[in-house]
Amino acid sequence: MARDAALTPINARRHAPVPGLRVPAIAPTADATRDHTLTQRLQSPTRDPQALGRVQALALQLARIQNGGPVPFDLLVFDAPQLVVFAADHGLADEGLSAWPAATTHEHVEQLLAGTAPASLLARQHGFDVTVVDAGVATPITLPARVRPAAQLQPRKIGYGTRNCLLGPAMSQAQAVSAIHAGMDVVRHLPGSVIALGDIGVGGMASASLLLSRLCGVPLADAFPREDPGATSLDDTPHVQRLDKLQAALQRHALAMSPVHALCAFGGFEIAMLVGAMLQAASERRVVLLDGFVAGAAALVARGLNPAVADYLVFAQRSAAPPHRLMLIHLGAHPLLDLELNLNQGTGTLLAWPLLLAAQTLLGADR
Amino acid sequence: MARDAALTPINARRHAPVPGLRVPAIAPTADATRDHTLTQRLQSPTRDPQALGRVQALALQLARIQNGGPVPFDLLVFDAPQLVVFAADHGLADEGLSAWPAATTHEHVEQLLAGTAPASLLARQHGFDVTVVDAGVATPITLPARVRPAAQLQPRKIGYGTRNCLLGPAMSQAQAVSAIHAGMDVVRHLPGSVIALGDIGVGGMASASLLLSRLCGVPLADAFPREDPGATSLDDTPHVQRLDKLQAALQRHALAMSPVHALCAFGGFEIAMLVGAMLQAASERRVVLLDGFVAGAAALVARGLNPAVADYLVFAQRSAAPPHRLMLIHLGAHPLLDLELNLNQGTGTLLAWPLLLAAQTLLGADR
Repeated sequence: MARDAALTPINARRHAPVPGLRVPAIAPTADATRDHTLTQRLQSPTRDPQALGRVQALALQLARIQNGGPVPFDLLVFDAPQLVVFAADHGLADEGLSAWPAATTHEHVEQLLAGTAPASLLARQHGFDVTVVDAGVATPITLPARVRPAAQLQPRKIGYGTRNCLLGPAMSQAQAVSAIHAGMDVVRHLPGSVIALGDIGVGGMASASLLLSRLCGVPLADAFPREDPGATSLDDTPHVQRLDKLQAALQRHALAMSPVHALCAFGGFEIAMLVGAMLQAASERRVVLLDGFVAGAAALVARGLNPAVADYLVFAQRSAAPPHRLMLIHLGAHPLLDLELNLNQGTGTLLAWPLLLAAQTLLGADR
Repeated sequence: MARDAALTPINARRHAPVPGLRVPAIAPTADATRDHTLTQRLQSPTRDPQALGRVQALALQLARIQNGGPVPFDLLVFDAPQLVVFAADHGLADEGLSAWPAATTHEHVEQLLAGTAPASLLARQHGFDVTVVDAGVATPITLPARVRPAAQLQPRKIGYGTRNCLLGPAMSQAQAVSAIHAGMDVVRHLPGSVIALGDIGVGGMASASLLLSRLCGVPLADAFPREDPGATSLDDTPHVQRLDKLQAALQRHALAMSPVHALCAFGGFEIAMLVGAMLQAASERRVVLLDGFVAGAAALVARGLNPAVADYLVFAQRSAAPPHRLMLIHLGAHPLLDLELNLNQGTGTLLAWPLLLAAQTLLGADR
């Protein structure tokens, strides 16, 4: 696995180049001959050719990713799987765009470090190493004393939260480049053939909505999930007020059209690092398992920087929110699970993980 | 676990009793107080109450099933999980109701015994014991010589395939009762707290469609899946011809309204045994994990015999066929997976199994 893949400049045909940004080269994985061989291995003359449905499609994608070398493909290898969760705060949260207080970001980081979050429990079950990256939480993160943390903490703070994007860009271009490079760096130093990605950050949904709206031309009302813990409220006023604020943010940054410019305008630091992590992992032919609305927004940006990254993205689950469904359509993604989760932190990636193992089992046999 | 639960006669209010049929008593699992305690264990003040979505609902269902005794609920226990696959042939297959030759039933049984079927590979991965029950395959089943079979074979042949239901009832009432009791008996002698169910049988889809149509009042055109291996045919003629034949079968047995009478009219032996297996497993408070259209039809019959069985059924996956979606709506079921499988044999149950383990992990913590 080439950890130091050649780096190419950002696609300059469509957008102005971003000074200093290195976008790694990514090899597309399509290969019709190999697909034919693999499909034959999964099929049987006594079964419908589509008998295994989406599991067959998953097995093909995984085999394409891992079959880059000249050696004939043998088995899927999943060694040392990693869960990497990027955490950051958003200046937008000051505008009351989430039902959760901003301090929740810190609490969720602590739960992952203490090993009590659902993602921690599932990571332990499946033998994932967990890394929590402080991409820009608004408070200092300290490891709990006298307890062996359940996750490795990587301090990579770009700032104490992004700026409020109603007042100016969420981050500078230099910060965005630093964050993308930091995400690449985190992945480059992790072992394993699978990188599962998660995110933590109050306000991240709002940033992701703005990115979806801007990069895909989706009306904001369709791009912003209605947040209603317990789904009991009949009062639309808070949601409409939030939409008004986000509309103002879109207008404030009407010229931020390119993926990186939109990222600078709307944030956040965790999204920028997710972008870098995806690009780096794909450049090293690792499987990228991702989950949720915020990681999906990062995939939109990453695809804008290097479209070949899409071949390496395995979408774990679809949440109940209609904007997430719309985002997945724009990403051309068919997630493996549809369990109505309302929780990021990579939880969905770990719930979907056994399906990758099933694909490995099914591909490994019949020879 | 009470293996010899008290037996009650079939619900006699709605339908004439079936001579000799023993329907085991099944305890409903609902308990609001316990649900409250369990929900608290799964939730956190820093998360949306619905954060875990359908995984939370699954965990509650599993805990309700296993929490029948006076001892406070501690952990979900999944010991010695079993996959039981019932195989039988259908006289209806003579009418060309499937694209597959009838000999495919035998071939699928042999693949399970040889351990080469997808379900065999997944069962090995997850430590399931596999039992193949010959409920009524049209040919003698013999174990492969000099090879240790990957599955236990149980010869319980009620007949060499059902009769063609266009010419008469698929089976006699005595055969139906024998088959239901045989399914109960198979489960009674298996260990473990989870019974995953699968089926094999060319023509089983047609029987299941007839049962769906009759027991739920669904028009046949909505109840019979279009079988088109490879989904390439633009010619509707074979499908319309099949629908005509099934319509004739419905008219031939217009008076077969009750669950057991419809089962006698339309078959098949594997469906009857699945009914018995579900009822017995539920009466012993075991988790019943089921998959696919044919097992779903068995669930319709089982529910007709004892509605409380529904509390114990965990639906593994939804196939791509619209009639299956309709059947699941009638069953009030939300399957865990939606992977567009077109394969029975319990494959979907084994793909969904890790989600039950995830529910176990999530329920076991935070105390």
